[in-house]
Order: sequence, then C-alpha cells, then structure tokens
Amino acid sequence: MRAAVVGEHGLVVRDDYPLPTAQEREALIRVRLAGVCATDIELLRGYKGGFRGVLGHEFVGEVIRAPADPSWEGRRVVGEINVGCGQCNFCRRGLGKHCRRRTSLGIIGRDGVFAEYTLLPVENLHAVPDHVSDEAAVFAEPLAAAYELLEQADIGPGQRVTVLGDGRLGLLCAFVLAQTGCDLTVIGRNPEKLALLTGTGAHIVLASPDTLDRLADDPADIVVDATGACTGFFTALRLVRPLGVLMLKSTFADRVNDFDLSRLVVDEITIVGSRCGPFAPALAALVSGAIDPRPLIHAEYSLEHAAAAIARAGEKGVLKVLIRP
Amino acid sequence: MRAAVVGEHGLVVRDDYPLPTAQEREALIRVRLAGVCATDIELLRGYKGGFRGVLGHEFVGEVIRAPADPSWEGRRVVGEINVGCGQCNFCRRGLGKHCRRRTSLGIIGRDGVFAEYTLLPVENLHAVPDHVSDEAAVFAEPLAAAYELLEQADIGPGQRVTVLGDGRLGLLCAFVLAQTGCDLTVIGRNPEKLALLTGTGAHIVLASPDTLDRLADDPADIVVDATGACTGFFTALRLVRPLGVLMLKSTFADRVNDFDLSRLVVDEITIVGSRCGPFAPALAALVSGAIDPRPLIHAEYSLEHAAAAIARAGEKGVLKVLIRP
Repeated sequence: MRAAVVGEHGLVVRDDYPLPTAQEREALIRVRLAGVCATDIELLRGYKGGFRGVLGHEFVGEVIRAPADPSWEGRRVVGEINVGCGQCNFCRRGLGKHCRRRTSLGIIGRDGVFAEYTLLPVENLHAVPDHVSDEAAVFAEPLAAAYELLEQADIGPGQRVTVLGDGRLGLLCAFVLAQTGCDLTVIGRNPEKLALLTGTGAHIVLASPDTLDRLADDPADIVVDATGACTGFFTALRLVRPLGVLMLKSTFADRVNDFDLSRLVVDEITIVGSRCGPFAPALAALVSGAIDPRPLIHAEYSLEHAAAAIARAGEKGVLKVLIRP
Repeated sequence: MRAAVVGEHGLVVRDDYPLPTAQEREALIRVRLAGVCATDIELLRGYKGGFRGVLGHEFVGEVIRAPADPSWEGRRVVGEINVGCGQCNFCRRGLGKHCRRRTSLGIIGRDGVFAEYTLLPVENLHAVPDHVSDEAAVFAEPLAAAYELLEQADIGPGQRVTVLGDGRLGLLCAFVLAQTGCDLTVIGRNPEKLALLTGTGAHIVLASPDTLDRLADDPADIVVDATGACTGFFTALRLVRPLGVLMLKSTFADRVNDFDLSRLVVDEITIVGSRCGPFAPALAALVSGAIDPRPLIHAEYSLEHAAAAIARAGEKGVLKVLIRP
C-alpha cells in the first residue's frame, strides 16, 4: 500500500509498504482523510527521540475487517490513538493512555494514518454519524484533546480564561471553552486566524508588548498555553493570577531554560499538563454542530504529496492541512 | 532596640534600631523566641532582589500594646506574616497573602522578628494556649506552611505520597502528612534527621541512585518537593506517576534550566506551588500534641549572635536554629 513513512532520512512516501494485518482485537481501517498535527512536525524534528514508521494520528476511516467484532465492518470511524497493555494499573483503571508500555498511533511504536490503511483495536473506535462530514470528523482527535481541559479544571461562567495561541489547537480550545460560558480571551498573532472566533463571544486580542502588559496587569484565573513554544509558556505565566491555573497543551522538543520556579511557589500557581481527551463530547459537538471546525482547513493534499502537506502545515499562518490517501 | 538588620553589606546586629510604633490596626509585640528559615538564608543570598530591614518571620511573642484591640495586650501570640492592602480582590476574598501590594514580615517591605520588638496587625495574630511552650509555638508558621498541602490536595488513606527532603520543612510536611493516614515515604540524605520520623509510620528511605531508581519505577500519586534545590525538583518529577501531583514547597534563588516541559503534558502531571498556610490546624496539632516539632531544634542563639545563628542554620545536617532576643 501507499504510506508516508519516517525512516533514517526523514519522511518518504512508499508504494510498497506492507498492508497491515489485524491482530487479535484490531480492526483494519481504510483511511478516508487524515489531518496533520504539530506533533507530526515535532516528531520529524526529533521530538521524543524521533519516530520510525507510518506517521499521522488524526483520521477518519472505514472499517474493512474487524475479526474481534465484525459489527464494526463497513462503519465510518474515528479512533483514540493510545493502545495500552491492558494489564497494568493504568489500563485496569481505564487510563490506558498513560500505560507505560502503550503504543500510540503514528507516535510511539505503532504505524499511523498517513497511509491507505491503518490498524486500531475496536475498543479505540468511535462510530461517526452519517451527517457528520469527513472534513469535520477528522477533527475528532484534536477536538477531544481540547475537551480534556474541561476534564481537568472546573471551567464555567464567572471565570476568566485566557487562551494563548491562535494555532490549530488554540482555536479548538477556544471553541470548546466558549461553550462553557466562561469569560474568554484569546490572544494570537494572526488576525485572519483570530477572525475564525467571531461569534463565539471570545474577546480577541492581537498580541503585542502593550496588549500583553495590559493583560498581565489584570491576570486571568486560568490560562491555556497552546502556543507550542517555550516563549509561550513564559508569557502564559505572566498572564495567570496568584492561585490561578496554567494549563499546558503544547508539546515541543525544546527545553525550557531560566525558569523561576519560585514564582509558582510564591503565587501558589498550579500547572496542569493536558494531552489527549475524551472523544464523546468532541463527537457530540460535531454532531450537534455546536462546534464546526471546518473553517480551519487550509489545504488538502494527496498522500503522494504528504511531505509537502506537512511542510505546508508548518508554515506561518497555516491552520489545518488534510491528507487524502 | 536591638535588631538584626539586612543592609547593603549584609546582616548587622544593631543596638540603636528605632523601636517600632504601632499604626492603626497593628500590635506592638515583644519577641520571645524566633526561628531561622531557609527563606532567611535565601534572602541574604539575594532571593527576590534582596530584602532591606529587620530579618525573620517565625516567632512567638507577647503583645505589649494593641490600640485597635487592647484585649490582645499581655497575650502570648504567633502571627501570620502577610499583610494585604485590605482593598483589592484578593484581600476582599480573604486571600491577603496574595495581595500584590502586600507586605510580608521580614520578607517584603516590613521589618521582621529578629529584634526585641515587632509589629503585626491584630488580625494576623493567633493566641497561644498556656501549655504550649515557646519552643513548640515558634514552629507555628512553618507548620502552617506544611498544612497548606492539605488545603491544596485531597490527601488521605489509599494514596501514596512521597516527601523529598529531610530538612526543616520536609520533616514538618512529613509530620502533617503522616496524620492523614496516607501511605507516606520520606526520602532524605541524613539518617539522623530521618530518624526523627520514627513512630510516624512513614517509610524512611536514604537517598541513593539505587533507591531513587527503585522509587521511580513505582512512582507515587503525590510528591512533595521540600529539598530547596533545583536538583530536587527534577528528582521529584521522576518520582511522580502520570496524572500525579507534584507539590512544590521550596523557594530558591536559582533558575531551573534544561526542563522538559513536554513531560508534564504527555504524562498530564500537575504541579502545585505551595506557600504559607493555615495557622488553625497547626496550632491545634501543637495544642493536642499530635505533632511535637521540638526535636528539630538544634541550637539557640542570643539575638546578638544572629549572624552566627543564620550561618549555623545553613550548615549541612542542621535543622531548626532559634534566636532569643
């Protein structure tokens, strides 16, 4: 089959990659549409020591074979990306995404979705209702990651919440937070991206030294850092009040330096790392139309041009880039 | 009066420091006994840009004059160290310890307790029952800081909690946590200090590469970093499980470098900064005898020898050093 594979010399699209075979609880899925995530770009840059295999973890597909549960066959699905060992403390408590021996679709030890076919256990699958388009469903995974914020903090009316970053994940976080009725501010550098938040009720702020100084003088209860950069972390720290919460949605390969940890102690700030989240509320928001992520789509590439798609996704000002096998 | 004063050239004991005058809600307090804290040592090293004035914030004293409420006069007291503006959002919510315009006894803009007399608003005072000795009562402030852990996290039976650090604050945190019935492990480098935990039910671990590796393989739900050092922070991160909580009790002037922030995101770890805490449970534990901190006392100096007292408190293996005016 055709697949975009990370090897020693970076990403190569091959036409002779072996068709995967479903093991035990796995389903064979034909990928209908895949999305490029910042993590894909970071993995190619060496994040987590680099990944070898088929890249990509955001997808919508169709189940071709599911020996463990044939009722899935023919259904359109999205899928959770972490596959735990099923036996450890985390897996037994339903927290397989934190299993130490987990594989993770296109990220750790498991071929991903920039390919004609992929595999996932049927337990990881969520059916996509007919009236949700592929172009919306392909956002289920990153939208679930945004919903993780609501699992980790009580957010609602009366709270002042700031999202820092107007990239893919920042905008999805803003869409989710806007649903809670909180007093939401979104800070970004790109007026066109920020314009996608019109109608959500969010206060939109174009980042500048002046606007950041002003916001730092009147800091928020909760700040979500979705900048994907070290500098964003330090800005986020300036924008959160004493006893406030800084939620980190960014992963990046760079290390943080010159960090004044005592600030956290003196101001009793809480930092919450936040990763993959629940698919159920994400799919519900897509089904009801409460959130329509499709305006984030900037381009679509064929699988043959996966390298160009990923390069495009890394360009300034570009939001979601899709790959169609 | 005699006072240990931080000036341009470090700490100097003076006999001609002006006797303070109680303003508005303040009480004039004769200091009976004071304690040296790591923060005092850090302030002399330049933490927070350095402090000018009378050092010291841990004390037990006797109220001499309290114009705002003469019923305090003659009473033995301990005192909360932060004095808010009384008008801002934090002060109005009872969170004056986070007031941006606060003063802090012997730390920010307010003379401290390494002196014959000191001042605090009567609202900051807590009466000490007669049968609690000065030597126990002088621990009220750091013990309250340890009790702050219980304000910030649900800790109880069934949870595995690790305290990293067998210094003054580490041991007080361990005493407090041992009261909760959690499964407590305390890691330190000094067998004599760790021996003070005998009878608390804590698992006592002498730090070594081997013991730390073993604990990292079976990480805890909650880790309290009370090492007062950057290296302790990184060790604490190794010892906390995914979805776990790292509570920071240390303040220090050094900056943290080469910090892999993505670890927090991937493992969804929460970091909680923790500072001053509630006096009520601390005093209650001293009154009931549930916690007796007096075995931590290593030495007592007269105020004249305050510099020697602080130097002694900074020596390896030394726990609480007291100063008697």
